[in-house]
Amino acid sequence: MSKKYVHGYDLRENIRLQDQASTLVELLHSDTSYPAGSQVLEAGCGVGAQTITLARNSPNACITSIDISESSVAEAKKRVEAAGFTNVSFQPGDIFNLTFEPESFDHIFVCFVLEHLARPLEALNSLKNLLKVGGTITVIEGDHGSTYFYPDNDAAHQAIQCQIELQKRAGGNANIGRELYPILNAVDFSSIYVSPRMVYVDASKPHLVEGFTKNTFTAMIEGVRESSIEAGLIDENTFDEGIKGLYRTIEMDGVFCYTFFKAIALKQ
Amino acid sequence: MSKKYVHGYDLRENIRLQDQASTLVELLHSDTSYPAGSQVLEAGCGVGAQTITLARNSPNACITSIDISESSVAEAKKRVEAAGFTNVSFQPGDIFNLTFEPESFDHIFVCFVLEHLARPLEALNSLKNLLKVGGTITVIEGDHGSTYFYPDNDAAHQAIQCQIELQKRAGGNANIGRELYPILNAVDFSSIYVSPRMVYVDASKPHLVEGFTKNTFTAMIEGVRESSIEAGLIDENTFDEGIKGLYRTIEMDGVFCYTFFKAIALKQ
Repeated sequence: MSKKYVHGYDLRENIRLQDQASTLVELLHSDTSYPAGSQVLEAGCGVGAQTITLARNSPNACITSIDISESSVAEAKKRVEAAGFTNVSFQPGDIFNLTFEPESFDHIFVCFVLEHLARPLEALNSLKNLLKVGGTITVIEGDHGSTYFYPDNDAAHQAIQCQIELQKRAGGNANIGRELYPILNAVDFSSIYVSPRMVYVDASKPHLVEGFTKNTFTAMIEGVRESSIEAGLIDENTFDEGIKGLYRTIEMDGVFCYTFFKAIALKQ
Repeated sequence: MSKKYVHGYDLRENIRLQDQASTLVELLHSDTSYPAGSQVLEAGCGVGAQTITLARNSPNACITSIDISESSVAEAKKRVEAAGFTNVSFQPGDIFNLTFEPESFDHIFVCFVLEHLARPLEALNSLKNLLKVGGTITVIEGDHGSTYFYPDNDAAHQAIQCQIELQKRAGGNANIGRELYPILNAVDFSSIYVSPRMVYVDASKPHLVEGFTKNTFTAMIEGVRESSIEAGLIDENTFDEGIKGLYRTIEMDGVFCYTFFKAIALKQ
């Protein structure tokens, strides 16, 4: 997996993730809360952006957070401890090769992870083995193809398409959000319920204009400028025009739309 | 305005509208209800698809429904009377040239109308004159550019783009939903609040698979086949491939997403 463009792996992207987490935490996470005493696996915790919210919303659950990157796990542990939470334990681990006993967990939580995996079905199957019968899996993913805005701008769509294409070449899928229902269905989960979480931003929501349109989404696309040009996906001028087009949407008469998808499903 | 492709003007499209109204009535209209005794103008009632819901949700408001087409008004009147509602009066009228006294109405309701107008700002200004100070305007519009689906299909996007282009050539704007905030702002309405109403359809929602993806959206795009080919916007094969792609999204593993936008704003 190329780490050049993937979020969660360098400082700038870490900052972006924090920003995203604080702006969107209510929209994405407010309805996730696990019962006291339940065993919860967070698969792919990264630097802990979502872990703090999980820990806060489920103060009496026992959360185990894993990530393939040891340095991310260390960073996540530091931050969760600094925030004063004691209900999370951390360990490095590969989703495809976890050493927990089968059916160890009551619930599993997977956020912004599948988009990076070449074999998301296999990952979900592997996680399903760790889930008790009657337990739930919660999956949250974005979908870059859900992006539209006013004023519309063709170069901006081309720049976004570069991110999607780079992620694809690295084995991922930046448009995976819309696929959560069929994916969970293919792995034989039951009672699958998908709820889109649309981020609608106009000038009446200045915190989202700053926090989402500018500092999360546009920053993410800006971050693939060099990789996109190097890969021959776009020329400099078009890319820069595209970024200008995205910045244009944060003006007083601009509008920006993006949709995350949250799925919850049952192991029967 | 070309009436070839525009909904509300022929039988097939009438049926489509009814279907759309019944499937989506909760999503779009459940939060619209006007107080007893208030004077409400429905500008552009078409054949009354939304009028029945308005009348039902605001049983003690006095609703005046107008449309530029006399035959549509007659049809709307027949249907609303057949449904047993007595709180609506009908008359033909042109939004740009209405004969009501200024500030005659407490509230104005405009649904699926601006998308067809070459001068939406002027229409809103004209309606604003009829609104009392402190009164509200509610505007509901679709946005065909908000459409995405799984499996993705390039020909399907091209077929949808034909509808958007034909509507544009007829002076309209099929992507106007995302613009409601800036448009209402440009006409100096206050306290503008826009809420997207996303229609998310997967196999767990068979009534939406039938009622929305197939019988509303795909039927609408199918309806522009001849006009699109005649206008040289697309070749037959690509269009038909696109329609096949849209039908593909109604299978068990398909997903379809579309967003309507609802705005409410105040005259100060």
